[in-house]
Order: sequence, then C-alpha cells, then structure tokens
Amino acid sequence: MKLYSYFRSSASYRVRIALALKGLPYEYAAVHLLKGGGQQLASVYRELNPDGLVPTLEDGSQILTQSLAIIEYLDEICPDPPLLPSAPADRAYVRSVALQVACEIHPVNNLRVIQYLKKRLNISEEQRSEWYQHWIDVGFSSLESRLSSEHRVGDFVFGSTPTIADLCLVPQVWNARRFEIPLNRYPTISRLAANAMALDGFAQAEPSKQPDTAS
Amino acid sequence: MKLYSYFRSSASYRVRIALALKGLPYEYAAVHLLKGGGQQLASVYRELNPDGLVPTLEDGSQILTQSLAIIEYLDEICPDPPLLPSAPADRAYVRSVALQVACEIHPVNNLRVIQYLKKRLNISEEQRSEWYQHWIDVGFSSLESRLSSEHRVGDFVFGSTPTIADLCLVPQVWNARRFEIPLNRYPTISRLAANAMALDGFAQAEPSKQPDTAS
Repeated sequence: MKLYSYFRSSASYRVRIALALKGLPYEYAAVHLLKGGGQQLASVYRELNPDGLVPTLEDGSQILTQSLAIIEYLDEICPDPPLLPSAPADRAYVRSVALQVACEIHPVNNLRVIQYLKKRLNISEEQRSEWYQHWIDVGFSSLESRLSSEHRVGDFVFGSTPTIADLCLVPQVWNARRFEIPLNRYPTISRLAANAMALDGFAQAEPSKQPDTAS
Repeated sequence: MKLYSYFRSSASYRVRIALALKGLPYEYAAVHLLKGGGQQLASVYRELNPDGLVPTLEDGSQILTQSLAIIEYLDEICPDPPLLPSAPADRAYVRSVALQVACEIHPVNNLRVIQYLKKRLNISEEQRSEWYQHWIDVGFSSLESRLSSEHRVGDFVFGSTPTIADLCLVPQVWNARRFEIPLNRYPTISRLAANAMALDGFAQAEPSKQPDTAS
C-alpha cells in the first residue's frame, strides 16, 4: 500500500493510526500542502484525487479517497483489531462521534476555508483565530456534553479498545493544542485522547514522527 | 421509529430517502431551524442531540445522530434494498462520494456557518452568495471530474441501483438549485440526480412534500 499524506493533515493522521493499529506496512508519499502553492493541487496528484485533498491510499489497482471511507475499507479487508463494534446501534454510535469531528468541526477549519477567509474576505489574524476557536468550541462542547453522559464510554469512546471515533478525536485534539486552544473545559475528551495517544499505534502516527515532518 | 427532521435540511433529506427506499414507516417530528431562534437549539431537543443539529432518529431506546451513521445503521438492520455494494473497494468508493458531499461541500454552507459569516464577520449579501456558490463549485467540479471518468458509474453513482452516494448527491443538487446555481457545467452529476429523483423513494423524501413544508 502507498499512502499520500501530509504530516500535519488530520485526515491523513486518522488513516495513519488505522494502518499502525492494524500493523499494515505502507510506503509514505509526502504531499506538501503549502509548498509551491500546494502539491495537492498539482495535476499529477489530482489525477489520483480530483478533490486535491489528502490522504489518498493506493492498494494495488484501487485508489481510495476520504479518510473515513479508507478506514472502513481497512477494517473490512483486515478486521483485526476491529475499529468498529459489532452491534448496529453501537456501530452507529462510534460512527456518529467520528462524523461529529469529520463533518462538524474539521471541514470549517480546513486549510482552504481559512485561505478563503483571509484572501477573499480579508479577515484579520484575530478574526481568523476567533473563527478557528469558535468551531472547535462549538464542536467540542456538544461532544463533551454527549460523551460525559454516555454509558458506553470507557477508557476509549467505546469501552476498552479504540474505534474509528478515537481515530478522529485524537487528531482534532492535536490540532486544538497546536492552536493553543484551552481544553480544560473538555475533561472527557482530554482523558479519552490521552488514553489513545498512549498506545503505540497512535504514537507512531503522530505528526511529529512522519518522514515529511517540518519539511 | 421517529425522525426529528426539518423539511429543507439536506442531512434530514438523506435519511428520509433511506427510510423511504427501505419502506420503513416512521413518525415525523418537525424541528424548525429558524423559528424561535431555532428549535434545534432548545434544551429539550439538545437532550436528544447535543449538537443541536437535525436529523435525530429514535428507534426504540436508541437515539441516533449524524445522517451517514443513521443510514449505515438502517442498512445494517434492514439490508433490503442494500444502500452499499458488497465488495470492500466498491463500498469505499460509494462512501467516499457520500463523504465528498457530507464533509467537503455541505458543512461549509451549513446554516450556522452562514449565520456566523453574516453576524460576526458582517459580510454582505453578495459575499454570502459568492461563498455559497464557491464551495458548491469547488466540490461539484472535483466530483464531476471524478464521476465522469469512473467506470462504476451507471444510471446511479454505482451501477443500476441507488446507494448512500446518491442519497447525499440528490439533496446537495436540490440545495444548489434552490440557490439558483447553474448546474450545466456538471452534466454527470445532473444526470445522476435526475435518475434518482425519478424514483418513488427519492420523490417522497423531497423537501416540498414534508409535513412541515414551508411552515
């Protein structure tokens, strides 16, 4: 397998965790999101991924895009350890937590949205920070409220092993810390992220440990 | 089952299509996103759905949120007709198309984001329209490029029956039309949406035919 990834991309980070937890070896193809106007927008990469987004996973002749679709694929072709529970209602629960991060928090703070705000709407650096913090706070507040009263929460979002929900939560927490957003109002989220980050698979996938780190 | 829905919400619309295609009866609970400052933000609704978003599906004691998680749940408890193909790579393909809409296009143009742009960043009506059209165009351009060269596309995104991908595509096309965004540059998307909209299940779920339409 070959993963097109950018060390700081949280969608890439999610897939790196899945590959690491399942012990699947892969070639790392770095796609720099800022250099040369963004390598993800170059025509050679867009032939693979017309969205011009990372990650992309090549598995033989298969070209896979969208991190959550890639993770579900990896879970289907390599079920051990499972990244989803077995009962439909529990699967819906962990998927919904993953989607709360992937649909409600992450897209609004994505690089291209921030660039539009700066270049087309001329917002100030202060307004940009407020925007970023606002959507993290909106998303984390409702997620904290949900997880703090959810009986299925254990050491991880679902019980005692990580699922697709933890794979989305950890990169979002990592991003929030990078932008120095205080997380003390989110004790459940912080605890769950710390538990996950202590696992080898999560640690290996960390942005600071990739071939293209700080390149 | 009981579906908390708003007639114009495209995430609600996706779930209504799934319920209709599978022939599952449900009680419709209208949640008005604009009246009284937004009924989705009222504390009684946020006990069900801390995100303050629609839809929410109640199935017995289960409370399910996030449209894509709900659709996968419905497909697991009621597999006929299936909304996902059987091979892992094909499942990843239809999920990735669904996620291209659900993560890349829809969140950036969501009501609460538009409200932030208007109220906090004081953008003009013209800038708001440009923003809306920009993200539709960015998303539809890459999706058109992908689907127009994808051999798995048939009458629907995958072959000859609708999948979760069509369930996401149709509401996004409906939204684009509502904002009078020209779709002639997206002939594949337009053709696929027209084929889907011609099916009974899609027609029943249409925003103009709900109990709370234009309320």
